[in-house]
Amino acid sequence: MLGLGLALTFMTSALAYQFDNAKDPAYPVLLPTPRNLTFGSQTALIDPCFFAVTSNVTMKEGDTLKVDPKVITANIQEYVTNKVFYKGSDCPATANYLASNVVGLTAEITHQTADLLPPDLEDGDESYTLQVNSSAISIVANQYSGIIRALATLAQLTKYSYSTGRFTYAVKFAPINITDSPRYPYRGFMLDTSRRFFQESTLLQTLDILAAAKFNVFHWHIVDDDSFPFNLTTYPNVTKGGAFTPEQVYSVEQVKNIVAHAEKLGIRVVPEFDNPGHTRAVGFDSYFNEAIRCFMKDWSNNVPDAYRINGGPPTGVLDPSFDKTYELLVGIFTDFNTLFPDNMVHLGGDEVLQSCFNENPNLAKFMEDNNITDYDQLIVWHMAKARYTLQNINRDKKALYWSNEDTFYQEYKDGDILVYWGLAQNITNMTDIYPNQKYVMAPGDYYYMDCGFGNKYGEKAWCDPFKTWWKIYSFDPSDYITGTQCLGSEIAVWSELNGDQNLNVKLWPRGAAMADKLWSDKVPTDLVAIVQRQVAFAEYLNDRGIATSSVVGRWCEKNADHCFAAYPEAKAEKVEELFAATE
Amino acid sequence: MLGLGLALTFMTSALAYQFDNAKDPAYPVLLPTPRNLTFGSQTALIDPCFFAVTSNVTMKEGDTLKVDPKVITANIQEYVTNKVFYKGSDCPATANYLASNVVGLTAEITHQTADLLPPDLEDGDESYTLQVNSSAISIVANQYSGIIRALATLAQLTKYSYSTGRFTYAVKFAPINITDSPRYPYRGFMLDTSRRFFQESTLLQTLDILAAAKFNVFHWHIVDDDSFPFNLTTYPNVTKGGAFTPEQVYSVEQVKNIVAHAEKLGIRVVPEFDNPGHTRAVGFDSYFNEAIRCFMKDWSNNVPDAYRINGGPPTGVLDPSFDKTYELLVGIFTDFNTLFPDNMVHLGGDEVLQSCFNENPNLAKFMEDNNITDYDQLIVWHMAKARYTLQNINRDKKALYWSNEDTFYQEYKDGDILVYWGLAQNITNMTDIYPNQKYVMAPGDYYYMDCGFGNKYGEKAWCDPFKTWWKIYSFDPSDYITGTQCLGSEIAVWSELNGDQNLNVKLWPRGAAMADKLWSDKVPTDLVAIVQRQVAFAEYLNDRGIATSSVVGRWCEKNADHCFAAYPEAKAEKVEELFAATE
Repeated sequence: MLGLGLALTFMTSALAYQFDNAKDPAYPVLLPTPRNLTFGSQTALIDPCFFAVTSNVTMKEGDTLKVDPKVITANIQEYVTNKVFYKGSDCPATANYLASNVVGLTAEITHQTADLLPPDLEDGDESYTLQVNSSAISIVANQYSGIIRALATLAQLTKYSYSTGRFTYAVKFAPINITDSPRYPYRGFMLDTSRRFFQESTLLQTLDILAAAKFNVFHWHIVDDDSFPFNLTTYPNVTKGGAFTPEQVYSVEQVKNIVAHAEKLGIRVVPEFDNPGHTRAVGFDSYFNEAIRCFMKDWSNNVPDAYRINGGPPTGVLDPSFDKTYELLVGIFTDFNTLFPDNMVHLGGDEVLQSCFNENPNLAKFMEDNNITDYDQLIVWHMAKARYTLQNINRDKKALYWSNEDTFYQEYKDGDILVYWGLAQNITNMTDIYPNQKYVMAPGDYYYMDCGFGNKYGEKAWCDPFKTWWKIYSFDPSDYITGTQCLGSEIAVWSELNGDQNLNVKLWPRGAAMADKLWSDKVPTDLVAIVQRQVAFAEYLNDRGIATSSVVGRWCEKNADHCFAAYPEAKAEKVEELFAATE
Repeated sequence: MLGLGLALTFMTSALAYQFDNAKDPAYPVLLPTPRNLTFGSQTALIDPCFFAVTSNVTMKEGDTLKVDPKVITANIQEYVTNKVFYKGSDCPATANYLASNVVGLTAEITHQTADLLPPDLEDGDESYTLQVNSSAISIVANQYSGIIRALATLAQLTKYSYSTGRFTYAVKFAPINITDSPRYPYRGFMLDTSRRFFQESTLLQTLDILAAAKFNVFHWHIVDDDSFPFNLTTYPNVTKGGAFTPEQVYSVEQVKNIVAHAEKLGIRVVPEFDNPGHTRAVGFDSYFNEAIRCFMKDWSNNVPDAYRINGGPPTGVLDPSFDKTYELLVGIFTDFNTLFPDNMVHLGGDEVLQSCFNENPNLAKFMEDNNITDYDQLIVWHMAKARYTLQNINRDKKALYWSNEDTFYQEYKDGDILVYWGLAQNITNMTDIYPNQKYVMAPGDYYYMDCGFGNKYGEKAWCDPFKTWWKIYSFDPSDYITGTQCLGSEIAVWSELNGDQNLNVKLWPRGAAMADKLWSDKVPTDLVAIVQRQVAFAEYLNDRGIATSSVVGRWCEKNADHCFAAYPEAKAEKVEELFAATE
């Protein structure tokens, strides 16, 4: 009978554990997927004790490198030592030479700009070629950042392999030839360090993870209503009053370390001062307090709803009728200009609780004197003055703004960049209203990584449910904006419920889905390949001591082909239906 | 003007960091809340180098302790050393005596049973009294488990305090007098170790966390379709074939360690063999393979939907028409009987994919011969035989079963315990159908801790959304079953997306909400007090090196009174509305 028939086919393999038979993919699994990849069937062994890193830099015509060229070689060496040879090495005094013919890595930069990263995002060139054969590894890129992207690919290709009592590293599928470049120039990650403070070490590690997935922008939402952890040298009392505790402040030294670490990894740091809303923390300073509307400190009783955004913790709003408001902006943008070399600065502009303006009886007169008709126009007036204040300090700075369905009254000028956090379905409204702006897409219904855990009352939050790996993959900016008007996207992490302890398991590997999608050419999404990439990226992080979550069950991780084969080939439209039905 | 007025009140306090003014609760915050608590305003300092633990055991009449009484003192000493003095001690050879008058802890047990835990859950008595004054700590309990619950309370009361170069520990609010006992005898935690393997160290640490929140049952869903990590000594090839890898098996020694660690903490371990469904992993053994329906190993092509439960990984079903089916049960229950002293064994019985029975052409004849009319009755027939097989090996064993809306055709006998995992709203249907059973409540819409992260396709899962701390608090068994018919509840963790790396941050502190609710008298839920308990429990775990998540933002943690004061006093009914509106 049938059962018996099965049993017979069975006798021989009964003692094989399930995963003894599980087959690894017969090709390199890389996140993001390179544009062009050819590979072979050899395994290149690398002996870290006999591995030389050399680099050669040819400058772009007319440019002169501002740093010592040795810095570039040192940075590459550091990446190789820490990220590629991730388990270290054990080089004996008298080395017993190992079976490894890979003599080293040569990095060639052909059009380097004066700065490691060109001042403007759109002048960046992250393209690279990577070749790994049985004797050497070679990387060629136009700019420094391309070398770093190539190293990220190399690190994902390299696995620790213990052999004859010596640490070795193996690259399978050699010879490997990769020609690669990103689809979008802006692949960002936003972190809110105001609702909760993150240790410097967490930010440095997060930058390493971002680089591994080829993100290239860290949008640092450094202050907000809840706390002011930025060490404001121009007005130190703002920090002293607004920070949670003296320890929960990013010192000048720490900010410099974070910016330098990011630059080394080809990542731009975009600081944000969200204003005029979300500025309650400033009000703890006695000098600026009078310019903060809705500010309360010593709560005599309940916090009035008029002081909260959707029932959240109390907010504060900078009052445009006070000169001090712009003294503050001068102070903050002066510090930003000193510490953050990138030409992008985010000015916020979201969730201005207009009812707070009613608190100032003199505001009506002020508006009348300035021909400001309503609070919407008052905010437009303020944001224009904020931009002016920024560019008056450094004319090369570009202003970024939060944009969603509630801010379509806003007015922008050429060069302003809109970071859209509204619903994906309303993106087209925005691009109709502002046809001349450039955009970064951070739709809350796809890219808000903190969603799905409820609001502060443990009830449903506006952006629930949780954005699964597949939900993230299902959004593509090119479905909404074509051409170069879209700079790219960013995933956002608001930190009410995130901290040093759970950030990694909450974000990874799923957060890498955005970087994967935006780097690679848009292709029909193959569920098996996607899961293999998510699993491979999680293993990459685990190999380096970073905790992650899982996107599928263990059986499906090891049997992705069988687990998903029955599923109809997934296309974005299909996913849209699925989520339309489930939200 | 108003702004200026505010500024004036301000000049003095501008340099105070926000949390310098945050007030800690002026009373002991304990999770769960003790039934009766009185406290004072002194601080009792404890010097771990001068702290004696003594215990005195008076046996229940007619009982004789099966273990050396010294074991009880040793267990108490171990709890004090590891959990109360959580940062250790530094006792110099010649101690410079410290300003501490707390000379030690005396534990008095008045009605101890022969076993550390009485054989039957309902004979357990976890009540205790705890007194902490400036000179001594005393605990009195009827049984061993009461002492352990008291120690959990003491550990939450005790904070590390460094003083004059010596480690000391402080108990604030002394003198403290607590009289305490649980509302429900079964406060359980279920973990699935088949979809993903958990290290022994993870299970041991989880037991410590459970004890801290006064859980008292570990329901171990040890095997399932995906893998068979239980080391089956009676049929070792079942393990060899069904385990993921040789390393992902719980050895006999490890199971003994886990059971012993649990017993030491007053926690019962209830093993489960889910059958006849969810048994695919058994089919890898050539001997039992013929008794597993729907089993496929070498997938020639896609896994047929007929082999999956809701499109999940393939399942398997034990065929009642094979004698081998009951040989297997004898083997498994024999091993269970050897390794698990508790009298509760879970037989599963959920999600039997009946279409699999069609695979056996001989089954119709078998059913006819046994007067079995349909597949529902076939399953009833099998579960009865499974219970008989269990109790034939040990007549004292009680059978637990999964029960939900799909199993209301099931038939039970006195002593059978139903673990209900259906929707809360359908609990009353069940109790109408089975008025004579006892129940453990694990409603999937409140207590499934793995929900909210989507299914394996990254789409919505049946039990989404995420169960927030507040959702968990909003369920109370007494709203559905009164009296002793309800033994209690358990939270369930299915492990497709959980593993060693993310279990703690996914579960804690919110998972403790159930233990909190079921231990304490049912009271109107005070949001501020709940959040203070959740935050305190998270800090308890953090102090002991265990990572957690956050239930509210940092500002609300430190300003719970202001953060939640504007919120209408939360009652279960109110919460029901909220969730009805948001799901």
